[in-house]
Amino acid sequence: MPLSAALLQTLHSIVGDKGFTTNQGEIAPYLQESRNRFQGHCDILIRPKNTQEVAEVLAICNDENIPVVPQGGNTGHCGGAVPQGGILLNLSRLNKIRQLDGLNATITVDAGCILQNVQLTADKADLYFPLSLAAEGSCQIGGNLATNAGGIHVLRYGNMRDLTLGLEVVLPDGQIWDGLRALRKDNTGYDLKHLFIGSEGTLGVITGAVLKLFPKPKARACAFVASESPGHLMDVFAYMRDYFGEQLCAFEMMPRFGLDLVLKHITGTTDPFAIAYQWYGVLEISTSRPNTNLQTELEEALHPLFDRGYIQNAVVAQDLMQAEKIWALRESMSEAQKREGGSVKHDISVPVSHIPDFLAETSHAVCNVVPGSRICAFGHVGDGNIHFNISQPETMEKAAFLTNWEALNEIVHEMAEKYEGSFSAEHGVGQLKINEMDRFRGGVELDSMRLIKRAFDPNNIMNPGKVVKI
Amino acid sequence: MPLSAALLQTLHSIVGDKGFTTNQGEIAPYLQESRNRFQGHCDILIRPKNTQEVAEVLAICNDENIPVVPQGGNTGHCGGAVPQGGILLNLSRLNKIRQLDGLNATITVDAGCILQNVQLTADKADLYFPLSLAAEGSCQIGGNLATNAGGIHVLRYGNMRDLTLGLEVVLPDGQIWDGLRALRKDNTGYDLKHLFIGSEGTLGVITGAVLKLFPKPKARACAFVASESPGHLMDVFAYMRDYFGEQLCAFEMMPRFGLDLVLKHITGTTDPFAIAYQWYGVLEISTSRPNTNLQTELEEALHPLFDRGYIQNAVVAQDLMQAEKIWALRESMSEAQKREGGSVKHDISVPVSHIPDFLAETSHAVCNVVPGSRICAFGHVGDGNIHFNISQPETMEKAAFLTNWEALNEIVHEMAEKYEGSFSAEHGVGQLKINEMDRFRGGVELDSMRLIKRAFDPNNIMNPGKVVKI
Repeated sequence: MPLSAALLQTLHSIVGDKGFTTNQGEIAPYLQESRNRFQGHCDILIRPKNTQEVAEVLAICNDENIPVVPQGGNTGHCGGAVPQGGILLNLSRLNKIRQLDGLNATITVDAGCILQNVQLTADKADLYFPLSLAAEGSCQIGGNLATNAGGIHVLRYGNMRDLTLGLEVVLPDGQIWDGLRALRKDNTGYDLKHLFIGSEGTLGVITGAVLKLFPKPKARACAFVASESPGHLMDVFAYMRDYFGEQLCAFEMMPRFGLDLVLKHITGTTDPFAIAYQWYGVLEISTSRPNTNLQTELEEALHPLFDRGYIQNAVVAQDLMQAEKIWALRESMSEAQKREGGSVKHDISVPVSHIPDFLAETSHAVCNVVPGSRICAFGHVGDGNIHFNISQPETMEKAAFLTNWEALNEIVHEMAEKYEGSFSAEHGVGQLKINEMDRFRGGVELDSMRLIKRAFDPNNIMNPGKVVKI
Repeated sequence: MPLSAALLQTLHSIVGDKGFTTNQGEIAPYLQESRNRFQGHCDILIRPKNTQEVAEVLAICNDENIPVVPQGGNTGHCGGAVPQGGILLNLSRLNKIRQLDGLNATITVDAGCILQNVQLTADKADLYFPLSLAAEGSCQIGGNLATNAGGIHVLRYGNMRDLTLGLEVVLPDGQIWDGLRALRKDNTGYDLKHLFIGSEGTLGVITGAVLKLFPKPKARACAFVASESPGHLMDVFAYMRDYFGEQLCAFEMMPRFGLDLVLKHITGTTDPFAIAYQWYGVLEISTSRPNTNLQTELEEALHPLFDRGYIQNAVVAQDLMQAEKIWALRESMSEAQKREGGSVKHDISVPVSHIPDFLAETSHAVCNVVPGSRICAFGHVGDGNIHFNISQPETMEKAAFLTNWEALNEIVHEMAEKYEGSFSAEHGVGQLKINEMDRFRGGVELDSMRLIKRAFDPNNIMNPGKVVKI
């Protein structure tokens, strides 16, 4: 149902010309989604410039039962910020760094701040904000919070949830909750911030946050290792975690097929080794203490792993440029896979101890259904998170392969469930996996979520059709 | 209203003889509270032996509108586990370690497990569970979770909330939520576990948990330092955090008055220094890497702090026994204060950067109201948590001093609020601070908590009169 002219004018008057448009040409870029899987549509784009404007807009939408889809950098993979009607509420104009408290090691920011700006602001204050992911140059803190973003440093620093001390949230009825407390200990009733973090804009609009900062790492060392199997790689992980303890900050895995794709499609990449191996690991250690020997220590740590048979080859980066080259192999994986043709992607997690069995059984099951499927299972295995991506068989048409999307999803997600895992590790649910919620979180858990959704958003205006079906 | 004989028999039949009593002599020990501030009463003590029994008991209580007070080790300071009627549901018979997964670094335990048993079980597997607090020999995991316990290692490892991956909870209507996932990444809808953690038994009964384990520290070093002022001590903290980064695991503060009380009342304690100073800090660094030089490194780090004027004296423990002696000074503080007479205690937190101003202004305000008050403000200043305790003036009767309880609470809590802090840092709300919830969390925040409470526990049977007034 189109909104009345009077209502449009009221909304327009709240946010002004800069914050309001119904021009589809201007709206179009905000409807694009990173993987082109969802086509959004909406009649109104609203871009408030502060929390108060968000509150006024929401109060009206709640009274009038107008759906509101909050949006940050719109870099998500699950269609969570893609509107299907209603108002698209883009937060990018809320982009102020409100405060940095060096002694307290906290930074208070608007939700629309770009992640990289927060990283850089911390860096200038000789501190460190550890959230790091591929989209960091364009994703926004509000989106990171709404999806509880992960990335490569979760192993040491935790998810976005773990990096957050306080929130400011506009509730569906337009009330503002000022929970911007910069406290590391605060036991005063139910922890509302954890309810909003990860709720993907279905319970309210996050407009500001207090984030934790850390001592800046003063030395890093990085290695690329080759192993016979995922089991051996997990042995390397266990050894390194015990050896380096708190200094182990990333442990990533990739298969030969993934490396092949990178070497084939990404200019300037080279194989660190003269011969091919089955599996590779990228690991990084860092310390906040000045240490010029970290590289040597890493080399020494790797040494006995040859004898034990955990690794077949290893290279430790000798300088920053070599480290960047190693990381580029890992970070180009998605792009390389895209260029290779159709792929069906997953973002699952299992307990670290189940990774080898999960990989073996799932790969087998996938190839049974689509013979010739090329498995590119890579990711943050140190925290159990695997992007179990499946590239089309070489001899198959892309379109034909993609007809198996649902069937492959089902296999991989059922297998994650069998191995006590999750069908969504770090990307969230959005529209993409809302049916999986019924399947794997149904019963008491989903019923409890519905209780919460109904209590906070009785008119179901907040990002309807995402996360939890009402 | 007394329960009918039929109902008593039904409850009795669920949990059997070992789990049921109405004998006040048997019940009495469970009604005692650590600080003798609350006298509990109830007619029935139920001690189920497993989750199923908890579920059956709750289903009946929900149908019959019988209040249920969950209880763990009953070591809390705020009366959260002290019943005022209804059924006392003690979880101590749910005391199994269900599973330890070394590679995944997780342990799955019953809620009634004693914290120290969990620490020891982890230790035997060459891993580490970092939650550590004075009551660890008798407090239970379920209580640690319900109150989001803190302690001395929060600085590095976080609160109980941060150490938890999964929960099993019996909801007020008797449904069991199996959220025992051992995953470090799982973004599938609203994070229910964070809702139950810290809710002090008002939303359901936690019966099991999956906890994170860590690489075991292989070396530790500990120092006792003297400073002119809290401001200087915070300079020491900032310096050490920057210097040792992830290795700084505890930073505690105590005033001269606190040390005086310890030396006076606790046998075997000695002043590490020949002369008296105004303020003291206890700091500890640890590493998961074998390091025989940690002590030397700590000494070297402290050296420049003399020239800067941050510290006036320092001693680094030369062996484990010396380290224990240093920690004993800090850990005996509560006991020493008790022996000195009446005291009014607080558990507040403020941003670390506000600690010096908060201490100065609050001390001044307190002494204005009760001249001669002796301030013993000590605690975990590295995470902003101060136990702002006030000992009676030497010349005043205990009873006369304690008539100022409410007035002193008001000053300290208002001042914490003024400095953007919390009236409850790590102890929780319970009965003790339920009025403070209205005062400092009233409005949108408390209203939102009430929405949750009503949604999960419409009959208000779960620990009524605690945390959130309905």
